[in-house]
Amino acid sequence: MATDTAFPVSERTRLRRRPARGAHDEATVFGILDAGVIAHVGYAVEGAPRVIATAYWREGRCLYWHGAAGSQALRAQAAGLPVCVTVSHLDGLVLGRSGFAHSLLYRSVMAFGRTHEVEGHAAKRRAMEAFLERLYPGRTREIRPIHDGELDMIAVIGLRIDEASAKIRGGGVNEKEEDLAAPGWAGVIPVQMTLGAPRTDERVVGVPTPASVRAFGEAERLDRVLGRNASAQRA
Amino acid sequence: MATDTAFPVSERTRLRRRPARGAHDEATVFGILDAGVIAHVGYAVEGAPRVIATAYWREGRCLYWHGAAGSQALRAQAAGLPVCVTVSHLDGLVLGRSGFAHSLLYRSVMAFGRTHEVEGHAAKRRAMEAFLERLYPGRTREIRPIHDGELDMIAVIGLRIDEASAKIRGGGVNEKEEDLAAPGWAGVIPVQMTLGAPRTDERVVGVPTPASVRAFGEAERLDRVLGRNASAQRA
Repeated sequence: MATDTAFPVSERTRLRRRPARGAHDEATVFGILDAGVIAHVGYAVEGAPRVIATAYWREGRCLYWHGAAGSQALRAQAAGLPVCVTVSHLDGLVLGRSGFAHSLLYRSVMAFGRTHEVEGHAAKRRAMEAFLERLYPGRTREIRPIHDGELDMIAVIGLRIDEASAKIRGGGVNEKEEDLAAPGWAGVIPVQMTLGAPRTDERVVGVPTPASVRAFGEAERLDRVLGRNASAQRA
Repeated sequence: MATDTAFPVSERTRLRRRPARGAHDEATVFGILDAGVIAHVGYAVEGAPRVIATAYWREGRCLYWHGAAGSQALRAQAAGLPVCVTVSHLDGLVLGRSGFAHSLLYRSVMAFGRTHEVEGHAAKRRAMEAFLERLYPGRTREIRPIHDGELDMIAVIGLRIDEASAKIRGGGVNEKEEDLAAPGWAGVIPVQMTLGAPRTDERVVGVPTPASVRAFGEAERLDRVLGRNASAQRA
């Protein structure tokens, strides 16, 4: 899908296989990114690949993540590196009448760009507050501000997305015509990230569950709550 | 934890930060790998990192994944590449009384090694059957065998794990002593991958739901079902 808000397409993001499942437009890419909590960030250290799983957040065409300032991974990324950030959601298991027709339902995004470090207390504080607000709208007003000393202990890495592609496999069983008469069950087992009942820390006394937590309703889908939070923030 | 079945530890897998959360023993690493469906495979193409999300399976210290034989990613991997495979499970959102104490509950594994291609119809068929049986024990007896022509359309990539590390963040809120009296709610919102009710393909007529599908009980945790399936296969 090409729109005026689409990411540019190059050899690495052109969807060669089943292009109907792919997209490069911001709405699709951002929708998948905003529904996730953990991204897989890939980079190379002297040619050797590393993939770290990390919490992340998005602002416009930028992705962010953070960690301990002394972390080897973040020190490498702070120096500026080409990275590939992949976010994926598993939506179901597909069982066909042949081994070949077994598949997964999923949504995923690959985003490419070069890292930079977010520096200075003001910028780091703003970034970390954006992270909290993305997950829990209103949370920063419920708690004390982040101290400068705490900001010194972390590194915040930013990534301006140069290119991105999304892939979505929805639907059901795709079976070859000649297998439709084959014996065996076929269908989809849906999979979703769901929320449990919040467990209040035992040292919390007399504090009602705030709106930021109540937004995560028991048995609700995590991706839907996050998507709703992202929309509310933009509104 | 060092045991006689632990993976060797090098600079890239030594757990520098919070080593108490880490492990290198097979039981921990395999437990996390066997509970997942999608892995994130990182490799470099001329120094530029790529991370693909893919279904995978494990046999002993080897990981496998597959895809279209013509896929650019798999062609590169078939030629033999150093890769990093990361599998992660999100288990909860942690909210502390300070921004700094916000965190995630998770289990993750990083596995390193070099890829090879699984070649020949017999080896590819055995590999793909292992993949199906890992997810759905008994499934290969419910459906027709995979044709040679179908095997020719896919590439199966194997990875002998040279090194691996696991990281687990469990527990609850880790708060600094001076923040315990701060206002604000603190606690954990549990997150889990749960299963929906199987949706039978509309072209299936008169076929009862087989045991391989009934193992995925509605509202059960996906990771528990997969762990159970993995144990059953080893038994």
